Amino acid sequence: MLEQLKADVLAANLALPAHQLVTFTWGNVSAIDRESHLVVIKPSGVDYEVMTADDMVVVDLASGKVVEGDKKPSSDTPTHLALYRRFAGIGGIVHTHSRHATIWSQAGRDLPAWGTTHADYFYGAIPCTRRMTSAEIHGEYERETGEVIIETFAQRDIDPLQIPAVLVHSHGPFAWGANAADAVHNAVVLEECAYMGLFSHQLTPQLPDMQADLLDKHYLRKHGKHAYYGQ
Amino acid sequence: MLEQLKADVLAANLALPAHQLVTFTWGNVSAIDRESHLVVIKPSGVDYEVMTADDMVVVDLASGKVVEGDKKPSSDTPTHLALYRRFAGIGGIVHTHSRHATIWSQAGRDLPAWGTTHADYFYGAIPCTRRMTSAEIHGEYERETGEVIIETFAQRDIDPLQIPAVLVHSHGPFAWGANAADAVHNAVVLEECAYMGLFSHQLTPQLPDMQADLLDKHYLRKHGKHAYYGQ
Amino acid sequence: MLEQLKADVLAANLALPAHQLVTFTWGNVSAIDRESHLVVIKPSGVDYEVMTADDMVVVDLASGKVVEGDKKPSSDTPTHLALYRRFAGIGGIVHTHSRHATIWSQAGRDLPAWGTTHADYFYGAIPCTRRMTSAEIHGEYERETGEVIIETFAQRDIDPLQIPAVLVHSHGPFAWGANAADAVHNAVVLEECAYMGLFSHQLTPQLPDMQADLLDKHYLRKHGKHAYYGQ
Amino acid sequence: MLEQLKADVLAANLALPAHQLVTFTWGNVSAIDRESHLVVIKPSGVDYEVMTADDMVVVDLASGKVVEGDKKPSSDTPTHLALYRRFAGIGGIVHTHSRHATIWSQAGRDLPAWGTTHADYFYGAIPCTRRMTSAEIHGEYERETGEVIIETFAQRDIDPLQIPAVLVHSHGPFAWGANAADAVHNAVVLEECAYMGLFSHQLTPQLPDMQADLLDKHYLRKHGKHAYYGQ
Repeated sequence: MLEQLKADVLAANLALPAHQLVTFTWGNVSAIDRESHLVVIKPSGVDYEVMTADDMVVVDLASGKVVEGDKKPSSDTPTHLALYRRFAGIGGIVHTHSRHATIWSQAGRDLPAWGTTHADYFYGAIPCTRRMTSAEIHGEYERETGEVIIETFAQRDIDPLQIPAVLVHSHGPFAWGANAADAVHNAVVLEECAYMGLFSHQLTPQLPDMQADLLDKHYLRKHGKHAYYGQ
Repeated sequence: MLEQLKADVLAANLALPAHQLVTFTWGNVSAIDRESHLVVIKPSGVDYEVMTADDMVVVDLASGKVVEGDKKPSSDTPTHLALYRRFAGIGGIVHTHSRHATIWSQAGRDLPAWGTTHADYFYGAIPCTRRMTSAEIHGEYERETGEVIIETFAQRDIDPLQIPAVLVHSHGPFAWGANAADAVHNAVVLEECAYMGLFSHQLTPQLPDMQADLLDKHYLRKHGKHAYYGQ
Repeated sequence: MLEQLKADVLAANLALPAHQLVTFTWGNVSAIDRESHLVVIKPSGVDYEVMTADDMVVVDLASGKVVEGDKKPSSDTPTHLALYRRFAGIGGIVHTHSRHATIWSQAGRDLPAWGTTHADYFYGAIPCTRRMTSAEIHGEYERETGEVIIETFAQRDIDPLQIPAVLVHSHGPFAWGANAADAVHNAVVLEECAYMGLFSHQLTPQLPDMQADLLDKHYLRKHGKHAYYGQ
Repeated sequence: MLEQLKADVLAANLALPAHQLVTFTWGNVSAIDRESHLVVIKPSGVDYEVMTADDMVVVDLASGKVVEGDKKPSSDTPTHLALYRRFAGIGGIVHTHSRHATIWSQAGRDLPAWGTTHADYFYGAIPCTRRMTSAEIHGEYERETGEVIIETFAQRDIDPLQIPAVLVHSHGPFAWGANAADAVHNAVVLEECAYMGLFSHQLTPQLPDMQADLLDKHYLRKHGKHAYYGQ
């Protein structure tokens, strides 16, 4: 079932240590088959070195139940499912504790758009969620993590296709994209921007956002019908 | 004697340079056989490149005397033994000068729990010991290092199984765990949290501790009878 | 056509990931054949792993039109061409988003000459351009990027052969040199100086420029008719 | 002539990129044969990838003249010779622009002894020289660089065998030792301490020196007749 998607999700998971985004088993990537409403996700706590495509777990989008696979899915599965249900245009999701994106999460701060590296991929600041409530933490925690992400995008009227990443307060980043590989790509860029933002801020503490014109130019040079980057 | 434990301790020592926790010979890992009260530890000042399982030294827990092995044990052996004698539940200990944990040690500061990466492994701040007295330094220094760690946990009423690491003032970290590999695992996580804590603090100097609810949730998601992470 | 130059430009492009100056496809190197007024440049958005010399695109210096090659040239081509037209002595150009040079660009600050590492290659501070105007951004953006670099050097009366690099505001660095390899060499040095400058500044916030005598000594030890470094 | 010493000096030079202390050709190691008063040193500006033992240059300690070798010696040779002449107990010298030691040099600050990593190798702060005068810079610059190092140790009454490294103002570090390999070893430790010192200082800006008792204990645990570290 969904053999190609499993292979894609495995490859995307293996890309995390290759891009130095994860330590041990601290990351997970999933992808969705929008026709069958099935999500393929990494198993929980399995080493990247020994992971195979058959270890990938297939879960049902609506119920979260395991449809195929003999391992438990990532404990973050309910977060992924919440995002797939609400963000209709996305095909892959990644969660990491990559160092510098996590630093912004721990500090509880949005990552401003401070340069064209950021603008090439994200059409504005990467939001940091609010702290979760005790009720959310003690309830269905992982699903609630997804809900607080959704709330953040809704309240600030952010299009998740234009800002394909979020910083979860006191936790770390989630990123997404058209598919699993694209989600990982965005997670790499987020980490790069988080690093550069951290030290740009140290060099000039009162650094203003980049010019809106320049943000538009770079984002739209790579996205939408007027894009002209690449082959 | 204790061939499997020697192999485990060798592997754990070799994991230190693999995880970039040590330069030259600046680290050591030991493990204990609780039945025979014997501790297996790395020899002093031997290069990781040429170290073999036969180089591991077996010492008696109570007396510290070498029971087997033709090399001198790590000069930090009395620290390890003191910890094994007092912290009954631990099976492996590691000492490194890993850069960021050592930075917190040099600055003489506890590493606060500032995110879920930390909470997944450590049930609260990693304590930094007080400075050692002249008498302690000029006495049985390495054993006294262990005693000041023990004092730190006792005075603050910290369970060493819940906070399996410490920052020794002006020196560097020790970490421990169920066995040698687990101790190294905790040392890697400590270094990761020390890095992220350093720059989270720079980004938000008055950063409060993470929410107690979230700390509970993440720690208990991975530890104790209600744990549900992994296979 | 220009087979040797294509091979050189390919090699210089591949040197970017080897020196850890680029992530994904975020960099480009070109070189010019001053006799034929033709420029060889990397194609847009092609992975370094699969790039061949035949993928290099040949464009006309004056018109910017593709003369040979079946791929689109780098979207930054008009910036390169503007610089080749005005900076007569240069033979190669490189653009990257290398982390620390980009941090200075994002902070909008010149990188001062703070040590002999800098002085060995750059005869003074690396200038940061002014912000671009809306008209420039919405016009021929990439060509205007070149023009604002040229303006920076003209207004400050900087010789681009003596300071072979620039920081484009809110964007990142360009560097150049006698040929493609030399341009990459300068980009590596810039990144090194940007790293060291960032933390030298943190260690001593009011750090003055290095002594003019020492700057002279080191720059002229390696450049000009009195140079005596190397074989 | 001096074939073993040439092999040692080559190996020590190749250890510099292996320990990530140098970029391009920015470092040099030498060693002295105290019987023949001859110094073996790296040639100037030769790539580490192609360097052989036969490229090493033999120079006379007193005159600095090349005694053997068909390449020019490192441009820093007069600095090495000055140090060998004055610091009678040393057998090898290394110069690098390693990032963090250079940051302290650029900031013009001594590197304080802030932990046992430092104390294990250096018996106190690593001094930073004063700025050089115009006369020194315009005179025999490289020899004067050696003289200002010597002056620093003399004026502060520092034993170069107990503090085997220095930070040259606005330039970078020199380190030395019993032989070429030992000098490189000390250069690696210096870089490690410079990194940790930089961020220890950021974490606690008014950080006092480590306790003199602890400095004594660690330095003397590894050096002198009461040393007990290693086999």
